[in-house]
Amino acid sequence: MKIQGKQYHTIWVKNGNSAVIQVIDQRKLPFKFEIFDLITVEDTYFAIREMVVRGAPLIGVTAAYGMYLALLNFDGNGFEKYIIEKADYLKSSRPTAVNLAFAVDEMLDFILNKKLNTDLIEKTLEKAYGLKEKEIYFGNKIGEFGLNIIEQIYEQKKESVNILTHCNAGWLACIDWGTATAPIYKAHKKGIPLHVWVDETRPRNQGARLTAFELGEEGVPHTVIADNTGGHLMQHGKVDLVIVGSDRTTITGDVANKIGTYLKALAANDNNIPFYVALPSTTIDWEIENGLKEIPIETRDTKEVSEIEGWNGSEMVSVKLIPEKSKVANYGFDVTPARLVAGLITERGICTADKKSILELFPEKNI
Amino acid sequence: MKIQGKQYHTIWVKNGNSAVIQVIDQRKLPFKFEIFDLITVEDTYFAIREMVVRGAPLIGVTAAYGMYLALLNFDGNGFEKYIIEKADYLKSSRPTAVNLAFAVDEMLDFILNKKLNTDLIEKTLEKAYGLKEKEIYFGNKIGEFGLNIIEQIYEQKKESVNILTHCNAGWLACIDWGTATAPIYKAHKKGIPLHVWVDETRPRNQGARLTAFELGEEGVPHTVIADNTGGHLMQHGKVDLVIVGSDRTTITGDVANKIGTYLKALAANDNNIPFYVALPSTTIDWEIENGLKEIPIETRDTKEVSEIEGWNGSEMVSVKLIPEKSKVANYGFDVTPARLVAGLITERGICTADKKSILELFPEKNI
Repeated sequence: MKIQGKQYHTIWVKNGNSAVIQVIDQRKLPFKFEIFDLITVEDTYFAIREMVVRGAPLIGVTAAYGMYLALLNFDGNGFEKYIIEKADYLKSSRPTAVNLAFAVDEMLDFILNKKLNTDLIEKTLEKAYGLKEKEIYFGNKIGEFGLNIIEQIYEQKKESVNILTHCNAGWLACIDWGTATAPIYKAHKKGIPLHVWVDETRPRNQGARLTAFELGEEGVPHTVIADNTGGHLMQHGKVDLVIVGSDRTTITGDVANKIGTYLKALAANDNNIPFYVALPSTTIDWEIENGLKEIPIETRDTKEVSEIEGWNGSEMVSVKLIPEKSKVANYGFDVTPARLVAGLITERGICTADKKSILELFPEKNI
Repeated sequence: MKIQGKQYHTIWVKNGNSAVIQVIDQRKLPFKFEIFDLITVEDTYFAIREMVVRGAPLIGVTAAYGMYLALLNFDGNGFEKYIIEKADYLKSSRPTAVNLAFAVDEMLDFILNKKLNTDLIEKTLEKAYGLKEKEIYFGNKIGEFGLNIIEQIYEQKKESVNILTHCNAGWLACIDWGTATAPIYKAHKKGIPLHVWVDETRPRNQGARLTAFELGEEGVPHTVIADNTGGHLMQHGKVDLVIVGSDRTTITGDVANKIGTYLKALAANDNNIPFYVALPSTTIDWEIENGLKEIPIETRDTKEVSEIEGWNGSEMVSVKLIPEKSKVANYGFDVTPARLVAGLITERGICTADKKSILELFPEKNI
């Protein structure tokens, strides 16, 4: 998608130098746009750990390229021990991100028991590129299927379609298109008039900083709101559709997503507004049935709540928001029960949020 | 209630100089505690408009003292026209606050058709003090009635009672005790173990800054959370009771309160958690029946969303949170329909949120 009018992915091989992987540095967005170079596996660990890159799909692809960089920079003996260590090291950068581990393991499986030579290095780079392509494919297909929902609303309403989204399930969290944003970009490119309500998404403000930024750069009309606002808008007919992403989805259709998603699902339900979740099937956990009981919820650094990062005109600074004496809790995600979800938009099509419908789209998973 | 161990009200006549009304400057709390002087009606307008003081009851009392200051500073001809103009001027400082208008009109009725002399000025000051006393009485009674609810939960649970509150319906919004916090302070003083989840309350962070501050100064255990978090806590049995305040209540029990209240009411409802609203009857608008249709919702400066104020270690500073290109919307309140409200805690007792029950407590209003 576009930044300052130029087409970007979130990660790519440096033009003219395949020993360097480049990513968009998301830490200072939307206030400063910078490119960050990954040359070593340590750079890759740093980029994931410090959230230079974030978003489950992008983290996975970045780690895959990290395995390529590990290979490229190997210099010595004991290659197998070395590469297994580097895989573990990369996996430890964000311990809860499930598809980070999947991506690294897929790369490791590919590399192990092969002879280290320029051919393997080249093929490993191709393999990482394959994971990247798969993510782009997912976003593209989710976008096409989700577009139908927006089109239908537009055909009925004949006026600009108002879509609410929470957090950043956008292309900055992926490679291109995004998940929740993919149908929005497809509809916008097709000329369907629409407007997006962007939840700020405290505590890390991914909505206010990243979703607003990427929609703005693509020219999609949007308005940033405090997380408290969605219910009021829905009560007053100002939201036609909610689309969010998913960090983990049960086989029964429960959705773990950024904290606060459940509250918007309740409000959508209370006002008869369709609440859709856009997700690649890689976020479906085929082994669990009860999201509320079985999905562990990550608690994060309380500083994300007690302080906030913003732009003072020349740099990013943190300011304090609460009294020194007060305790703080910071839960990263919540679980929206399937009963509140109108449908799941996947790369294979749209289904209702229940086991039967999900397995109809993914029959090979019915074990 | 206490600040740094010393007993305070939010507003008082300056010791030794009755031409000066003093208020706690709430703009720099919790980081800096300062007193703000009101000498003119323009100071009063400024204090209300710029939220030196905030909270419906305190705004009303402040405006009442403002009418006294208007009287005190009159110098010229056309007193009646002057005082009516000042009344309108004060009322325009915060359009949604219904008891601001009530307080000003009550003062105006008292002043009009009287002879302007030192006796009237003295009696007007007494009248304003009467409104202040009434608010303290309201908080005290609401606290006593609400205490019963907390006590009952404690008797059943035999463990610390977890209460969630949104925004600041605390003593800083009133004169003393507060509304939503009054039952909490009463229970705490009685030795009932409890813990309060404090919603940050974006965009102005009255929860993180004011409720957390006042609970901390009174020694009440509490934890600040992002507004997105309450639903998750309720799903996991971590909330026993929700108590919020009200800016305006319909005779049918619909409640207009700080934006985001509706979302918490939905989550409480979805998890069978009692959702109570603590309010003095002065916030009841006896003329309207449909909160969603009839209560106008104030939109406020978008900078409250696009920027945030915090403490950098030595002063309050504002930092930017969203891209320059993005639009922002800032709605101040939402309406929680009566069907989601377990009960109203008033100065006359607790009633269910419907016209019949409300009128049983306030039979004199049945016109």
